Order: sequence, then C-alpha cells, then structure tokens
Amino acid sequence: MTLPAPASDPPSAEILCIGTELLLGNITNGNARWIAEQLASLGIAHLRQEVVGDNRERLIAAVRAAAGRCRVLITTGGLGPTPDDLTTEAIAAAFGADLSERPELWDDIQTKLSGRGRPIAASNRKQALLPVGAAVLPNPTGTAAGMIWTPQPGFTILTFPGVPSELRVMWQATAAPWLRAQGLAQGVFASRMLRFWGVGESTLAEQMADLLEGVNPTVAPYAGAGEVKLRLTARAADAAQAQALLVPLEAEIRTRTGTLCYGSDDDSLASVLLEQLRRRGHTVAVAESCTGGGLGAALAAVPGASDVFLGGVIAYANSVKQELLGVAPELLETHGAVSDPVALAMAEGARRHTGATWALAVTGIAGPAGGSDDKPVGLVHIAIAGPAGSSSEAVRFGSSRGRRWIQTVTTGEALNRLRLHLL
Amino acid sequence: MTLPAPASDPPSAEILCIGTELLLGNITNGNARWIAEQLASLGIAHLRQEVVGDNRERLIAAVRAAAGRCRVLITTGGLGPTPDDLTTEAIAAAFGADLSERPELWDDIQTKLSGRGRPIAASNRKQALLPVGAAVLPNPTGTAAGMIWTPQPGFTILTFPGVPSELRVMWQATAAPWLRAQGLAQGVFASRMLRFWGVGESTLAEQMADLLEGVNPTVAPYAGAGEVKLRLTARAADAAQAQALLVPLEAEIRTRTGTLCYGSDDDSLASVLLEQLRRRGHTVAVAESCTGGGLGAALAAVPGASDVFLGGVIAYANSVKQELLGVAPELLETHGAVSDPVALAMAEGARRHTGATWALAVTGIAGPAGGSDDKPVGLVHIAIAGPAGSSSEAVRFGSSRGRRWIQTVTTGEALNRLRLHLL
Repeated sequence: MTLPAPASDPPSAEILCIGTELLLGNITNGNARWIAEQLASLGIAHLRQEVVGDNRERLIAAVRAAAGRCRVLITTGGLGPTPDDLTTEAIAAAFGADLSERPELWDDIQTKLSGRGRPIAASNRKQALLPVGAAVLPNPTGTAAGMIWTPQPGFTILTFPGVPSELRVMWQATAAPWLRAQGLAQGVFASRMLRFWGVGESTLAEQMADLLEGVNPTVAPYAGAGEVKLRLTARAADAAQAQALLVPLEAEIRTRTGTLCYGSDDDSLASVLLEQLRRRGHTVAVAESCTGGGLGAALAAVPGASDVFLGGVIAYANSVKQELLGVAPELLETHGAVSDPVALAMAEGARRHTGATWALAVTGIAGPAGGSDDKPVGLVHIAIAGPAGSSSEAVRFGSSRGRRWIQTVTTGEALNRLRLHLL
Repeated sequence: MTLPAPASDPPSAEILCIGTELLLGNITNGNARWIAEQLASLGIAHLRQEVVGDNRERLIAAVRAAAGRCRVLITTGGLGPTPDDLTTEAIAAAFGADLSERPELWDDIQTKLSGRGRPIAASNRKQALLPVGAAVLPNPTGTAAGMIWTPQPGFTILTFPGVPSELRVMWQATAAPWLRAQGLAQGVFASRMLRFWGVGESTLAEQMADLLEGVNPTVAPYAGAGEVKLRLTARAADAAQAQALLVPLEAEIRTRTGTLCYGSDDDSLASVLLEQLRRRGHTVAVAESCTGGGLGAALAAVPGASDVFLGGVIAYANSVKQELLGVAPELLETHGAVSDPVALAMAEGARRHTGATWALAVTGIAGPAGGSDDKPVGLVHIAIAGPAGSSSEAVRFGSSRGRRWIQTVTTGEALNRLRLHLL
C-alpha cells in the first residue's frame, strides 16, 4: 500500500534493531512493529527498517549509511552491561566521538541495583557511558539508559534498550514529546480497516481500482485466511480533519461492496454476528463435525458471548450425530455424513436440544484423507436452522491449502452465512 | 544464544521484507523470524535484515545494495495481483531485465481460481510474469509463485509471497533443498525442539543452567502460551555426526525433566494424547464450557483424529449442561457451574452419551467479566472421566493475560492432564 504523500518528500525516521537473537530467529521483532506504529500515529514518515547482529563493524556501517538517508535513527538493543552490548560504543565510533561517564547515570544505576538486592558489577559502569555531547534518554525502570544525540547537523540518533516494557516507557515519557517538538510530522494520520468475507483480494481490488490510486486518503488491500481487508489511511493537519477525509471514502466503498463488507477495525465475523443476534434478543447454537469445535470456539472467543451463544454438539463421529443430535441412521446410510440432509438434521437437532433461536451446522471433509471423486477434500455442507425453517448448501474450498485452512474458512463461512441470513 | 561458530567468515544470506503495512506497524514481521530460524537450522550465515515499503525506487535501491553484500537475498511480500505489488517488477528493473509471461504459471493461476469458484481477474495475469532467465519457485497453495533468479554471478534472489502459510510450504518444498544444494552451509546443523508443559521458562532455564552455556551443541529456551520449548542445535561435518551430538544431550534433558517433556519437533499435546489413546484402542470425548469448542478443535486439528476423537458437547449455557450432559440442576444451584461437582458431572455425561473410553471436561471463568472474590477470572475446573472412575481439580491461571490466553492454556492443561493420567 501507499501512504498519503506530503507535498514534498518528508524528513523521515528509520529503525535499526540490534541483536544476534533476531538474526537467529530466536525472537520476533515486536519492537520494530511497536515503534513503527508510534511513528505512524505521530505522522512521521518511516521508510526503512534494518536488523543487524551484535557486531561492531556492521553496526558502524549501518549507522553511517542511515546518516546519509534519514533525519532520525531509532535503535533498539545492545545497551546492556555484557561484552556483546556494543551499541553506544559503535555509534560513537561511527562519528569519531569519545565516550564520557555521566555521574548522574552511574548514581542511578547503583541505586536501582541496590534496591533490587543485586550485586553491582564493574560491567554495569559501562552503562553510564555516552558520547560527549549526547543527552540522556532516561530509563525510569531499568539500568540501560538511552541517548538523544545529534552527531552531525540534521541527523539525530535515539537509542533504546531491547526490553519492550522499558523501551515503551522511555518512548512515551521522553522520545514522543521530543519527536513532536521537532516538527517532523507531516500532519496526522487516521486509518480504518474495513473487513470483507466472500470476495477474493484481486476481485475486490479491481472493484476499487480507481480508489487504490488515491493519494490522500489511500486504500490498500490485504488478504487473510478467507478474509480480505482494506486499510483506509488519511493525512491531515489534525486528527479531526484526517477522520473527516475517511468518511466519504468509507461510504463509497460500502456502497460498492454492499454486504461483502462485514465490519471494521477490531470486528470479527463472530463478534458482528453475536451483536446482530443480541440486538434481536436471539440465541445461537452449533453442531460441528469437520471443525471439531472451532465454530463454537470462534464465538466463545468474543468477550460477553454467553448471553447469545448457548453451546452445541461436536458431532465428530456418526454415533454422536445420532445420539446427541438425533440424526436418523437412514439419513447417514443413504446420503453419507457429508450431505445436505445430514447437515439439516444436525442443525435442527442442535436447535431442538439447546432451545436456541438459531443453529449452525457444518459437516465436511477436512482431509488430508477421506476424500473421494464424488466428495473431495474441501467439500463442506453448511446448514442454518431458524424460526422459519432450515436450509443447507454445499461449499467447495478445495484441498490445496490443507486441513487447518479448510477448518478455519469453514468456520468463517458458516458465521457469514448466518450473518447474511439475518440481514 | 550463540550458534556453534564456523572456522572463517561464510557466504551469507539477507532477508528483505517488502510491505508498507510493516512500516506502519500494522503487522509484526513474523516471516523474518521464521526465515531466520530456517537459515540458522541450515547453517547459513545471516547477517542482516531489511524492511522497505511498496515503493519502486527504494525497493530497487535495497536490492542493488544487497547484491553488493550477500550471496543470497530472500524477499517476502509484494507478489500479489494489485498495483502496489511491485516486487518482481522492481527486482527485474534493478538489473535491467525484461519480464516474460510463463504459460505454466498462468494455467496454474486460472486452475486455482476456478477451483475456488473465484472469477479470474485480468490483474491476476501479472502474477504469471517473471524476469527472463528466472526459475519458478512454485507456490503449491496460492496464486503468487516466487522465483529463483541469479541476475549476476554469485548473487541469487529468492522471492516469496507475504502470506506465512504459503511462504512456509514453498520454503520447505523448494527453497530449503535448493539452499542445501548450494553448499553455503558451514558444516551441517541438526536441531531438535523439545516441548514442555507445566513448567515456567525461568524455572526450566535454571534447571538447565550448565547446558545453556554449551558451545556445541547449544540449548536455547523459548516460551509460548503455556508451553515452554528448548531448542537443541549441533554443528558437525555431516548430518549423522550432528545428530549424534544431540542424542546424549536430549537424554540428559529428559532425565532431568521427566514427564514435563511431552514431545518434540512437530508434536502437539493433542497429537501426543491421540497417539497414546490410539495405541490402547481407546477413544475420547469432550465437554466444554469456558473453552467453547477449543478443546475439541485442538484434537480435530490433528490429521487422522477421527479414529480416536468422537466429539462431545459445548455446554456453554447451564441449560445445555443439563439437557445434553445430564448435569443435575441441584448441582448447578448448590455448587455453581464453575465447580468440581459440575465438572465431574459434565465429564461423566459426555462419556455416557458418546460411549468414549475417556472424557475431558472444562468449566471456568475466562473473563473479562463474571469473576468474584471466591471464583476469580482464570479459575478453571478440569475433570477426567474414564473406565476406573472420574476426578476433577481446580486450576488458577490468573486474569492478567486475558480471555483468549485463559482459553488456550485451559485447552493445553486439560490435554496434558489426560496425557499424564495415561502414563
């Protein structure tokens, strides 16, 4: 996707994350995502991220290269007391600066360590060193303070420890106000995620072809498991103006897509369906074969589900379909477990036994085994039973994406069918 | 952690992740972590990662810069059909190459879209274009194929879509064997993931303190949702020697940890439990309140579950506990739904109604609402009913990590309790 562009190319920020554990794949780079989100909310352009290991030469090279491209470099990691914590020293070396000990930092480190009953190691003293001329970026909770340093005109480095909780406190307390005061923000961003079910990414993108070329606001498509999303982003002088730019765009997209758009932002198919039912004072139950409980789990994942979702039956084996849902053995023999008559009987049985207003049933072949020419892997029958009767339909999801994908999209498809039925 | 080190500086791989959504902080870069882990397990040096947005000029610059540094560049993202999917085109432009349509790719795309009942958009045709001279890196599940292209001697680019499930299948099927065949690895790594339930990361790390300092093999701990893992990695001249280094280490860890270690590598608690039951010719059913189907879904996620897992009841509402599991109303009134007597009655009811050898029941308070001083959010009762009787116990997971975490660890804890019961 493309962000709304400012009039001219903006001064930008880059993120440089330092740590061999990132290069080994031991941990996910959650700090980069969090800082990126903060920069976006501040309206500061962010065009590049980099990760290097605990290696002095590569770190120096990365810092020097960034100095030629961006206005602000934000680093994470490498501020600890151990020998492989090299960030401060390498950054100083990149600009030929000396380090000086900051007595107020060394006092603070000793106080914090004593307060935790920890021994004060000689190596901790290293954490009191900063390049000459750098300002302290205070760490209220840990011993690894950062710095705000402008080694050359028009280029400032902010350093943070890798511990996410410490980084976040330092950002909110000191870095965010500092960044706001620099006037780097090209206005403010507002964004909104619209969520779709029952349409492919490419089809939706073609319907939106003209909007995808918009400059401000912008529209960008994303694909998930069965779901497609459009992110709308606007830039303006203040938050209210940015939000106002999104309103007509969202209305236009909703007009074009009708019921394909099921919700926005933190909505899920389950939360939207539960809300539809709640407004009517209705309840829902499930009868699941191939999903094995996934449909119920999706509903139960929504806080407050219990006033609408009653439960149901996981009828994985045919014997359970008969015993707990009252599916007639003749139906299973004549049509097979994966069929409309059995899906209907499951939904009706779940509705009867739970007393729910609505029941959703799914029976299908999730694979990898169990498919045939007639009933291939990926074939699912979805039934809805309600006050005015019941109906069932077959859906073919194909076998290529595997068992869990089939189970996930079956869950989404069933929720969406009841959502559409209620509209 | 530190990996067993090679003798001299090796040819290296870099990762370039493409997508403005990463720069906006909309999503975490899980692909970079996963690929980094794969490179480590292949023994290929990986010294740098980069993220750029969907911007042609910056993408071209990043690819050209990487060509001057590394032997293999792995890209993710930007292979979709929409206008902001620029990866293939920008990489070709970086080396002045033309794109050519691959008829076999276009056939494959049309087949996949038709099989899903999706219309074929003109924009999909773009996904059949690759630079002249590039080999196809097949995507078995999606329409976004990648490429393996050597635009200049000693520098090869492998492209992947951003969808993690597609990327992983493509990596395992094609990229990993290709990389192995390039002779980039400095020796061969062998690794093994041991999986634990019922112990914290720091406790396990303390028990292993001496082993965590090992140089070859190495041991590194990871924490998940309720689960803790130890990755054992050895380097040697060939695979057999590397594996041989792991054997005594794994034996030592298993001796120290006993039944806390439930499995290794691709095992899950559900797959291990199903296998235990399968060997005995036993079956299992579930009765779920607070998990709403998640326990059944975990069992049903395992291929071939149907010969052991029969199904059960999602007894989210008390009326369903009574109607479908035969829980006596007096029990619910006297003890409340979250209690040992109700958990026992649920398990016994599920066993009776399904005819399963074993039944697992869970009832608890997932929150955020519904807790009290007496029965706080995070309190769960787990019952097992079996041939020799039934038992139930309360577990307190705490409220701080939220509803979905409580539902996930409740599922794991229930599976683990039956696993231990069977040992």
